[in-house]
Amino acid sequence: TSKTYSLTLIVSLCPLDTAAAPVPELLCIFGTGDLGRSLGQRLLQSGYRVVYGSRRPHSCGPLPQGTQVMSHAAAAQSASLVFICIHREHYDVLETLAPELKGKVLVDVSNNLKKNLYPEANAEYLQRLVPGAHVVKAFNTLSAWALQNGPSDANRQVYLCGNSADAKQTVTEIATKLGFTALDRGSLSAARELEDFPLQLFPEWRLPLRLALGLTITFYVYEVVRDVVYGYVHQGKDISFRMMVSLPNKVFPTVSLIMLTLCYLPGVIAAFLQLYRGTKYKRFPDWLDRWMLCRKQLGLLALGFASLHVLYTLIIPIRYYVKFRIADSTVSQGKLNKTLEFDTTMAWRTDSYYAMGILGYAVYLLLGITSLPSVSNALSWREFSFIQSKLGYLTLFLCTFHTYLYGWNKFLIPYYYKWYTLPTYMLSLVLPSVVMVLRLLLLLPCVDRTLTRIRQGWERTDPEDDSKKSLLT
Amino acid sequence: TSKTYSLTLIVSLCPLDTAAAPVPELLCIFGTGDLGRSLGQRLLQSGYRVVYGSRRPHSCGPLPQGTQVMSHAAAAQSASLVFICIHREHYDVLETLAPELKGKVLVDVSNNLKKNLYPEANAEYLQRLVPGAHVVKAFNTLSAWALQNGPSDANRQVYLCGNSADAKQTVTEIATKLGFTALDRGSLSAARELEDFPLQLFPEWRLPLRLALGLTITFYVYEVVRDVVYGYVHQGKDISFRMMVSLPNKVFPTVSLIMLTLCYLPGVIAAFLQLYRGTKYKRFPDWLDRWMLCRKQLGLLALGFASLHVLYTLIIPIRYYVKFRIADSTVSQGKLNKTLEFDTTMAWRTDSYYAMGILGYAVYLLLGITSLPSVSNALSWREFSFIQSKLGYLTLFLCTFHTYLYGWNKFLIPYYYKWYTLPTYMLSLVLPSVVMVLRLLLLLPCVDRTLTRIRQGWERTDPEDDSKKSLLT
Amino acid sequence: TSKTYSLTLIVSLCPLDTAAAPVPELLCIFGTGDLGRSLGQRLLQSGYRVVYGSRRPHSCGPLPQGTQVMSHAAAAQSASLVFICIHREHYDVLETLAPELKGKVLVDVSNNLKKNLYPEANAEYLQRLVPGAHVVKAFNTLSAWALQNGPSDANRQVYLCGNSADAKQTVTEIATKLGFTALDRGSLSAARELEDFPLQLFPEWRLPLRLALGLTITFYVYEVVRDVVYGYVHQGKDISFRMMVSLPNKVFPTVSLIMLTLCYLPGVIAAFLQLYRGTKYKRFPDWLDRWMLCRKQLGLLALGFASLHVLYTLIIPIRYYVKFRIADSTVSQGKLNKTLEFDTTMAWRTDSYYAMGILGYAVYLLLGITSLPSVSNALSWREFSFIQSKLGYLTLFLCTFHTYLYGWNKFLIPYYYKWYTLPTYMLSLVLPSVVMVLRLLLLLPCVDRTLTRIRQGWERTDPEDDSKKSLLT
Repeated sequence: TSKTYSLTLIVSLCPLDTAAAPVPELLCIFGTGDLGRSLGQRLLQSGYRVVYGSRRPHSCGPLPQGTQVMSHAAAAQSASLVFICIHREHYDVLETLAPELKGKVLVDVSNNLKKNLYPEANAEYLQRLVPGAHVVKAFNTLSAWALQNGPSDANRQVYLCGNSADAKQTVTEIATKLGFTALDRGSLSAARELEDFPLQLFPEWRLPLRLALGLTITFYVYEVVRDVVYGYVHQGKDISFRMMVSLPNKVFPTVSLIMLTLCYLPGVIAAFLQLYRGTKYKRFPDWLDRWMLCRKQLGLLALGFASLHVLYTLIIPIRYYVKFRIADSTVSQGKLNKTLEFDTTMAWRTDSYYAMGILGYAVYLLLGITSLPSVSNALSWREFSFIQSKLGYLTLFLCTFHTYLYGWNKFLIPYYYKWYTLPTYMLSLVLPSVVMVLRLLLLLPCVDRTLTRIRQGWERTDPEDDSKKSLLT
Repeated sequence: TSKTYSLTLIVSLCPLDTAAAPVPELLCIFGTGDLGRSLGQRLLQSGYRVVYGSRRPHSCGPLPQGTQVMSHAAAAQSASLVFICIHREHYDVLETLAPELKGKVLVDVSNNLKKNLYPEANAEYLQRLVPGAHVVKAFNTLSAWALQNGPSDANRQVYLCGNSADAKQTVTEIATKLGFTALDRGSLSAARELEDFPLQLFPEWRLPLRLALGLTITFYVYEVVRDVVYGYVHQGKDISFRMMVSLPNKVFPTVSLIMLTLCYLPGVIAAFLQLYRGTKYKRFPDWLDRWMLCRKQLGLLALGFASLHVLYTLIIPIRYYVKFRIADSTVSQGKLNKTLEFDTTMAWRTDSYYAMGILGYAVYLLLGITSLPSVSNALSWREFSFIQSKLGYLTLFLCTFHTYLYGWNKFLIPYYYKWYTLPTYMLSLVLPSVVMVLRLLLLLPCVDRTLTRIRQGWERTDPEDDSKKSLLT
Repeated sequence: TSKTYSLTLIVSLCPLDTAAAPVPELLCIFGTGDLGRSLGQRLLQSGYRVVYGSRRPHSCGPLPQGTQVMSHAAAAQSASLVFICIHREHYDVLETLAPELKGKVLVDVSNNLKKNLYPEANAEYLQRLVPGAHVVKAFNTLSAWALQNGPSDANRQVYLCGNSADAKQTVTEIATKLGFTALDRGSLSAARELEDFPLQLFPEWRLPLRLALGLTITFYVYEVVRDVVYGYVHQGKDISFRMMVSLPNKVFPTVSLIMLTLCYLPGVIAAFLQLYRGTKYKRFPDWLDRWMLCRKQLGLLALGFASLHVLYTLIIPIRYYVKFRIADSTVSQGKLNKTLEFDTTMAWRTDSYYAMGILGYAVYLLLGITSLPSVSNALSWREFSFIQSKLGYLTLFLCTFHTYLYGWNKFLIPYYYKWYTLPTYMLSLVLPSVVMVLRLLLLLPCVDRTLTRIRQGWERTDPEDDSKKSLLT
């Protein structure tokens, strides 16, 4: 049976089975530049034979040992797959080679230096120049280092796309042999996306990062004025050293709570919008869509700020300033020779305050851990939404309660309203309080029932609208 | 060669290569409800053409722009793949369409509201109704949101199952084009499992969570009675504020140590059972099997409680109660005008106690990190078992030692046995001490040798048993 | 069309479609030992039929219910795929079966007890003995437990390799049905790598771990001598208790900072080497290559030591020794009856010192999180290199600055140079200071420009060298 077997395979031109052949497969590389050399070396190491195609085959510099150089046309005819390692600006050369490249698999590995430099993706442009070939976009998302040395941390996955499934299968095989994991991203129309991929630097983190930076700077300046400048002007004291630990430890929790709230605000807005419109089939405004898409980033940044707040709080007792003040107050207490009363309410309040903070932070950390890709992949969406919604609101509640307990009755004491401004912790409480009230409104049975129906596809039909329709039809 | 190529492909009806065709593939959706509309929109966006099949093609509400609606029969004939977006209760309609659906791929995306509602999985029922079709169960594990908007965190993977490999391949292609990763779960008999998947909420965490909750509540009440109630009854003091931080910080480490021990107890029991039985081929009792399967969850919960203990311990010095007591004792010390002696043993003991706790927690965190899916996948099983077994016992030892050092000589002081009850830390030491002694027994050379042989497949043959056998045969 | 369909499939002998057949597929296992039994049981549970091949089919002990035992030859003829569950020493039996095994898929699941026991991988040896068969190496990386009970944490992936793509596809199908994820590692020449895989225990962690251990012991002994022994000899005090917390808290940050620097030193050396050589095409010396490959492990260990330092620092205020000293100094301060002056410089310095430490640790944690496999896979290489390079140097800077602030003016005070030795913190500052200066040199415009050109493939041609070449040609 073995013979019939391979016979069938030859007939169906199956690219899979070339590995079984005793002679290693021959691949062609167009371009003898740096990229072409690196790729050739790697292919040789993985057991392929390599032939280079060059415009000037006789003067193209040092190439890996054991490879050949020919003219483009000759090289193309010798192999069924060609890596295009030349710049897009020189693709016009390939147009003249269209007859030789007919039916071949062309792997476009090119990248551009900027986004939107050309109206068309490089790979689509190549396909247009050589319509008879099977163009596959691949390997461009790897670093040059990975192409030369094999896969490493952020370089394990090769994204590819193309219109021919067989051509993609061939390239997948090669990628696997080189040690990478190939991921099919669909037809050649995805090429632009793949070409933009190596150029991006945390695109979905930009907005949240800017917001975090803006809030941090604003509140920091606000606190410097209220604390350090106020202290200097009104009490003539230099307490500028508070800028290193004390003030950041007021700013970080404020920013953290506000950003945590911003994760849950768009969901509440969306619910009220659906209730108002009476349908879920109308698109949300763009700003709301964009906001909802960066909720994860907002939440992770808020967790980062919360972690800084935890560390800044835990070092409080080893600070010189704090130790000095405690020793000072103990000494004066000893001198006055009267015993202080233990204040049970104070003990209850501060201990509750710390307990809420710790529990809030613990649930928050849990949220952070479940948003790790490998953990969230292992969850069903019911589990994921349970964690992100139920535990998310629990975090918001615990952290807000923690802040209220911190404030306690300070809002009654005029001393804290320096220069008629509000303390930061009060400012940070506004948004979460509003979100939690709105959320409670949505949980009212009548509102909840309507919203559930809308989300199941029910639409409120405006009777007036209906009558208009019937008039028209 | 290009011509022969496509000829072969047409003959072999390969579903892969439709992507190469210039006209986008036509897919059919039965059902114009919410699910059908979402799916249709998404398919359109990914470059497919969509036709709907409906019982009442002329009155089925708004459908995505660019789609057609026909009768079920007409729609089925126009496409080779049909998404079944109708409720299981209406599947009987499909029985009458059996001739039109013969040879077609039917994708069952349905879910039920509860487990075990029907004796048979929806997809198997569908296959029974339309035996000539290739039923594939798929997409049901996605949230509606993901089906409409594409993959996101917990919605990247599409599980599918079915009896026809080609049908599954076709569905895999579609899933990939929509941006998902398809995972083949085998034949259609896996359909029930897939249909149960979206309904489950942390099934493997239930038992450990209940246990943790039970232990926490029990020890908390126990401590409230021993501490707060005792203080009120015997000393007339109101120390109820200790319920917020002091008592939890006794309960958390206790629960943590007990649950950590429960990770290692079943392994020890299993080893003794194998030694007693003299074989590894007899099944363990069910309770032991179930216990062993939730060890990871037990361990992670114990790590969570340990982390809470760490945070509760680190805030001790900033608590009002603690600061008050220290100031108070310093002032009275100053008054008495005598210098306290520095107790070197005390310094050694407390420092060791803290060091053990920190090291134990550090190794524990390492265990937690290696149980993240992406990390444990990167380990060989020898590495994984090294970490979970060797480092696990190291954690257990360090944490138990930490608790012993905490106790020190307190067990000699009657004051601590309030109302003739044991302090929680003593209770928490029972189980780990027993497990470590048993584990040491298993490490004795003679026991270890026998166990190793049994685990390599050797069986202790009872001479009596053998003689019985020979009598029977 | 359905008929033509299956006809084509029969002709092309496609192994995929056996799942559609009503009769479950029959697989053969050679060897009735422990491994064979476990595997057989699992295959039965997954819906396969199993037949065993044995040298002594009539006396081979208990086998799973529902399986058959035959001679090797008879068993081989009944199935198209054979699992080889016999020891390599007995492979010679298979040579005589070569005619019966021709065209069959042989799955080699064997492992050796040690590395390099044989000159040739087991699977390659098998292929040489039975050249007509399609040997696939697979399943050997699983634990015996996983083979019997199905996938679990570190046992989800089945690595396989072989020369026949179809044979690999068949084995992939079986692995998938058993619940595993199959990963193709290329041709049979990868068999040795797969056979070594289960034997390895953190090979890439060995060097960094040894280094960490060596540094820790060295600095610990150094500190014990400088602190405890010095205190005993010169001041007659027993401060040995400091060995538990105080001294480790000097050693850990020292080791951490040194190991963090060792992550960045090889990159700097490599850059200067490239500048000196004027090309990037010459290989780096082996030691540099090996060093660069373990940077990730060095960094993660350094992060572990930094975390220990954080925990050891945070428990400072609850230590008995510290509390005693503070009470003592407060009491004597009260007695002396003079008020201490608050030292603003001291407050600035210590607060900055803590703030730098916390920020450095925070960025460091971020580096650690992004090196989790699932996170780094989700990053583009530009993002990954941004984090590891830019944020890495930021960490190094913050941690070094933190140490300088800790030292402050101590280097001017002779007391700290006990026995003419340097304090550890000074020793730890040497390497990072050097690396940062070198790094700054590389950022000078003229140096940076040359380096960038070299890394883009440009080579400095030695004019002398050129003239020699022209003489020779």
